[in-house]
Amino acid sequence: MLSSTVNGMAKKAQPIGQTKPRIGRPRASANETDQPVAEEILAVARRLFREKGFAGTSTREIADAAGLRQPSLFHYFKNKKEIFRAVVTDTVEPVITFIRTEAERDDPADVALYRLVRHDTYHLCTNENVLGSPFQFPELTEESHPEFWGMRDQITDAYRHHLREGEKHGVFVFNNLEIVTQLLFSLGESTLAWYQKDRDRFDPHQVADTTADLGLRAVLTHPRRVSTIRRQSGAF
Amino acid sequence: MLSSTVNGMAKKAQPIGQTKPRIGRPRASANETDQPVAEEILAVARRLFREKGFAGTSTREIADAAGLRQPSLFHYFKNKKEIFRAVVTDTVEPVITFIRTEAERDDPADVALYRLVRHDTYHLCTNENVLGSPFQFPELTEESHPEFWGMRDQITDAYRHHLREGEKHGVFVFNNLEIVTQLLFSLGESTLAWYQKDRDRFDPHQVADTTADLGLRAVLTHPRRVSTIRRQSGAF
Repeated sequence: MLSSTVNGMAKKAQPIGQTKPRIGRPRASANETDQPVAEEILAVARRLFREKGFAGTSTREIADAAGLRQPSLFHYFKNKKEIFRAVVTDTVEPVITFIRTEAERDDPADVALYRLVRHDTYHLCTNENVLGSPFQFPELTEESHPEFWGMRDQITDAYRHHLREGEKHGVFVFNNLEIVTQLLFSLGESTLAWYQKDRDRFDPHQVADTTADLGLRAVLTHPRRVSTIRRQSGAF
Repeated sequence: MLSSTVNGMAKKAQPIGQTKPRIGRPRASANETDQPVAEEILAVARRLFREKGFAGTSTREIADAAGLRQPSLFHYFKNKKEIFRAVVTDTVEPVITFIRTEAERDDPADVALYRLVRHDTYHLCTNENVLGSPFQFPELTEESHPEFWGMRDQITDAYRHHLREGEKHGVFVFNNLEIVTQLLFSLGESTLAWYQKDRDRFDPHQVADTTADLGLRAVLTHPRRVSTIRRQSGAF
């Protein structure tokens, strides 16, 4: 469901991941790689959007950089907005997938929250699909990209859910559920600003562990339990 | 020093705050207010930069919106970049001023950190000069606006200083000073994303108090002391 609908690809597009020969869609250049064409388009577009923004990047440039003629590009994505939609969806989708898988573990709220903060932070630090802060892109409005903001809300919902469960069972204590949800969610997202600016300074595992430790200590009724929770959360 | 140099106004500009009659600089429109001209230019530019970005705003539009002819605008600011420099400086300057004043109080590290988080957060929630997240403006690079990033670093330095002092005296405990500095600094800055998007949902005093509570609990050796520290921090 997610992978086809939310990726926002044109209906007739070749699914991402399909690797059979692309008959009748000749590449403009001979610079063929093993990467399926749609993925290659997204990789190239991601780099251009990062460097020049959405408005500063044309489909012509994307096609050129991917070694395609423009009509071939439009075979995969119907316009620049659809490419952008797929690129931004790729930045949040892995965390949504993680949250769904986690639901099967049925961890207590403190372990579940630790694992979520740690995973979300590590993902934002290391996943090459992460485009940057959503606030860098004025075109990424709630009106034009409701599916991106909806997925981001699903991640916020998972933070809120664990906090509410933990409070109910007395393991968490805080003043205002909504403000604390936003603050803990923001801890991981903040790495888009400071970690990405200076990647060589920090080990991403340490950033993820430290962020999860700090986030948990901030809300635990007995903050000294954080080392036990970290152990219970397992390796990552 | 700060108010003249860092504001980046053209040398011959009338200082902000000066209210004597502006002889020989007729306004294009009769829409005169009590606000000194330079401040009015900045208020208008701030609104346009927010709505349309730096690249999307022309000096012509700024002049029109301020009721000035372009040559009169250039009397106050030599170009669009200088206007932008003054606008972004205004977003961080009040916190720098706060930090300087605070230094005279000689508070213990936990009270000093509480007051800093609370003030910084409240400022970002409520000050009408705050432009938005620095990451919304691709033109606001460290190369082109070193004075803005330098002032932002001074604020980060204050967080780092209080954390280091508190750790030395055993009141704070954490794994990695640098990561924790970035995370606590980011807590306040995150309100630029979530609080500003939905201002009516939260009371800014409660946001500031909750953020300071959460930030302190995250690093206090004895997190239950947070209510004492809040009391010691006084009203705001």
